Amino acid sequence: MPVGLTPPVAGSLTLIPGIRLGVAQAGVRKANRDDVLVICLPETATVAGVFTQNRFCAAPVQLCRTHLASTAPRALVINTGNANAGTGEDGLARARQVCAALANELGCKEDQILPFSTGVIMESLPADRIISGIPAALANLAEDNWLRAAGAIMTTDIVAKGRTASCQIKGQTVTVTGIAKGSGMIHPNMATMLGYVAIDARVPAGVLQHLLNEVTNESFNRVTVDGDTSTNDSFILMANGRVDAPLVEEIDGADYHALYAAVAEVSVFLAQALARDGEGATKFVTIEVEQGRDRAECVQIAKAIAHSPLVKTALFASDPNLGRILAAIGYAGIDDLDVNKIGLWLGDVEVVRNGGRDPSYVETRAAEVMKREDITMRITLGRGSARDRVWTCDFSYDYVKINAEYRS
Amino acid sequence: MPVGLTPPVAGSLTLIPGIRLGVAQAGVRKANRDDVLVICLPETATVAGVFTQNRFCAAPVQLCRTHLASTAPRALVINTGNANAGTGEDGLARARQVCAALANELGCKEDQILPFSTGVIMESLPADRIISGIPAALANLAEDNWLRAAGAIMTTDIVAKGRTASCQIKGQTVTVTGIAKGSGMIHPNMATMLGYVAIDARVPAGVLQHLLNEVTNESFNRVTVDGDTSTNDSFILMANGRVDAPLVEEIDGADYHALYAAVAEVSVFLAQALARDGEGATKFVTIEVEQGRDRAECVQIAKAIAHSPLVKTALFASDPNLGRILAAIGYAGIDDLDVNKIGLWLGDVEVVRNGGRDPSYVETRAAEVMKREDITMRITLGRGSARDRVWTCDFSYDYVKINAEYRS
Repeated sequence: MPVGLTPPVAGSLTLIPGIRLGVAQAGVRKANRDDVLVICLPETATVAGVFTQNRFCAAPVQLCRTHLASTAPRALVINTGNANAGTGEDGLARARQVCAALANELGCKEDQILPFSTGVIMESLPADRIISGIPAALANLAEDNWLRAAGAIMTTDIVAKGRTASCQIKGQTVTVTGIAKGSGMIHPNMATMLGYVAIDARVPAGVLQHLLNEVTNESFNRVTVDGDTSTNDSFILMANGRVDAPLVEEIDGADYHALYAAVAEVSVFLAQALARDGEGATKFVTIEVEQGRDRAECVQIAKAIAHSPLVKTALFASDPNLGRILAAIGYAGIDDLDVNKIGLWLGDVEVVRNGGRDPSYVETRAAEVMKREDITMRITLGRGSARDRVWTCDFSYDYVKINAEYRS
Repeated sequence: MPVGLTPPVAGSLTLIPGIRLGVAQAGVRKANRDDVLVICLPETATVAGVFTQNRFCAAPVQLCRTHLASTAPRALVINTGNANAGTGEDGLARARQVCAALANELGCKEDQILPFSTGVIMESLPADRIISGIPAALANLAEDNWLRAAGAIMTTDIVAKGRTASCQIKGQTVTVTGIAKGSGMIHPNMATMLGYVAIDARVPAGVLQHLLNEVTNESFNRVTVDGDTSTNDSFILMANGRVDAPLVEEIDGADYHALYAAVAEVSVFLAQALARDGEGATKFVTIEVEQGRDRAECVQIAKAIAHSPLVKTALFASDPNLGRILAAIGYAGIDDLDVNKIGLWLGDVEVVRNGGRDPSYVETRAAEVMKREDITMRITLGRGSARDRVWTCDFSYDYVKINAEYRS
């Protein structure tokens, strides 16, 4: 079960005026479940996106990049059940068919549609079924449909993930609402599996992209479940551009920072939710690395720990077999690391000082911390003042079970 | 259970004249099991070693490096049950105590002893118990003791690992015998967890080290169980230097190549045995990457696949969910990879051609291959003529179970 995470309750996701969401059951892979989501944008909207760095990026990701570069999007169409990745030219053609069908319904151009897919890789996208579902999705378009939309994009997720935050800009309240899905193949590299955050404000596309890049590096790029970077990672930030809404047009101004804080609140919540609901997760783990020369090496060490199957199984067992953490620090690839300066804290328990077991360390105290569902480990490197953090989960029987049975 | 691997039978490991092995039950961690091994070398012997690249290398690894650089070793002492890693200055002092005790018994200097440890990290080495066990180990020193020695160095290994090979040099038969242990925290980087190979020949130390470096790159550096590089990896090659044995003193001559082939046969067998008996393994997997620009990028892609928990759980389930392999290729870090040139074969089944599903691919044929215990996947990159390979195993419930319960 997810760790410290409950689904959003009805009414907790505040609508963003002008942004309407519709859901359909198209039977993409299984019958009788919401598996197609359409998000329609007002003509005033601006959109920014970041996408997977996986070289095998999916057909919809390729189209999103092209479409975003050429014109202002009018709608997004998302399907679960099939990733349309590793499908070559045929996959691109099928994703284009879906875009064309939705564009035809909306009276816009094909490249004004952003397509997204998630599910099994290397299987042919059933474009006909998705297209058949589009009218039903359009029929229930509503601004107040974020909660159902959060459910419609789930695959192996146990709970839907959504969050609303707000900030004050020029005396007005600016609302930010977002949803995401994750669970497995989660090691976002520039983006997460699928994330959509909308803002009730006017933000030029360039500013929006800058904001998105900054937020991504503080949220989705800091979470990992299994170290597998997906072929379909996409994280989209949309501003509705409502005429009466505040305008944020200066990067690094006070308004930008207020907006940044609200978007980051939503994005960090969603990113953490991916780890809390990671496949088979029984623990949510925050790994903080401090006193590094730069942030990159702090992340490098945190990810080595987060990806270690031995650390993850010890967390699952609540076993303070913490030498495994030292081993992961040691092989993280920092060639000139002086291990005699390393410190390690588990919660409020000092475990390692100067590279060896702290003289006052008593394992029963660490064992108490390991029993918790929410665990923070802190590593000090003694070589600088940079710091960073990564969120992850443990590695349980259920991870193996879920991924051994995924397609059955 | 190990995949296609049975323990060596009595008499199958041929002795190397002058090299004697003795075993003791010292109760390092648990009672009534062989946990200390002493290997005594003749005065004529030469020794070479490669050791872990983990920055948190264990105290015995640090001493081995120093001792090997300063003098000719007379004996090796190996304990299981405790890795003496992450133990700082106290760990070094304890390893030195063990060396001093054995040196005293043998009438040699402390730095003529090479110490090795494997087991739990960051716990204090019970040097007194190991020292108490040394007389018993010396009492049963025998040339014909390789089989018991292979058993004495096991930790979570299910079967002992040993192999003998031979070659002809200058009209004489040269015997090569080796043992190794592995199971978990197996992603050797310059060496394996613990491996010892001995040669009945005269080989100058420089030539022996060159041979060892070459062989390591073809054997232990090509295997991974869980991607965790151990703090204690050590791989030792010993030549007995027997007066009547052939002399191999020229690197790259015919004699060197004959010897190389025999040492490689033993080392590749032992390296594969680590994956066949990897923790929880139910499949043995060979990943061949071809048509790369250089061997390094072939290994990089093979290891991305070998470390992917999603690929490993699909292997465990015998599920040909092969898109996961494409995803791993895509995130392996080859920035200019043209995915449209990628090919993938599973056994004799062509799965992917030109980056997409092969038109003639039928999943039932891949499903047949996935059911086998011994699986080869071959990836073609279409960008050069280099090739390399990596051996690994799958990821099962038992991996989680073994590592969740390791210290209990």
